[in-house]
Amino acid sequence: MATNSDEVEWRSVCPISSALDVLGDKWSLLIIRDLLIHGTRTYSQFLGSPEHIATNILASRLSLLVCLKLVERTHPDAIARNNAFRLTESGAALRPVLKGLGRWAQEHLKEFHTGIIGIS
Amino acid sequence: MATNSDEVEWRSVCPISSALDVLGDKWSLLIIRDLLIHGTRTYSQFLGSPEHIATNILASRLSLLVCLKLVERTHPDAIARNNAFRLTESGAALRPVLKGLGRWAQEHLKEFHTGIIGIS
Repeated sequence: MATNSDEVEWRSVCPISSALDVLGDKWSLLIIRDLLIHGTRTYSQFLGSPEHIATNILASRLSLLVCLKLVERTHPDAIARNNAFRLTESGAALRPVLKGLGRWAQEHLKEFHTGIIGIS
Repeated sequence: MATNSDEVEWRSVCPISSALDVLGDKWSLLIIRDLLIHGTRTYSQFLGSPEHIATNILASRLSLLVCLKLVERTHPDAIARNNAFRLTESGAALRPVLKGLGRWAQEHLKEFHTGIIGIS
């Protein structure tokens, strides 16, 4: 798993593929969701989300998102665990993608996941 | 990696999380992209895409997408390798998500991936 922008393997020049080279995993867009929708800011708040992200995955994903300028530290000189995070303009620009995924799931996954709720 | 809808681990009741439980990997949305944008239909055509998906990943992802009714076999009784695939209405409904990811990458990843091209 890439933790630095230099480590991202760009599989092709296709923009959809490139977006997935960065965001194509189960966690990155959930971190963006937490920052964008739930007001999550700190490590402990991320760890408290209902999907129970593991600490090492959270650290590596946040590190990559910071390198790619989707997320920034509110206190850049402090160590990661004592820090808070916020979305940059680039990260916040993913709002339509998240909304689209949520709407799609509500309409097309209810047959398989009956507990699914509406987007808050 | 789940290959059957019964094997999907739904991490929470959030629709965004649920969409990522199914589509949160580097390949599933590329398979949808190929079917939706590039007219890809057969195993050999998928394997010929520039991102070079591995055969076993293609097989497992297609199997899950068929189980979840995002993709269907054009000849359901034939074995997978001799088959062709097409999107269902649920799969085609991911078009806005793919477009959103592509547009986002064009605007926000060019600094890191200078080869990135426009969406065809």
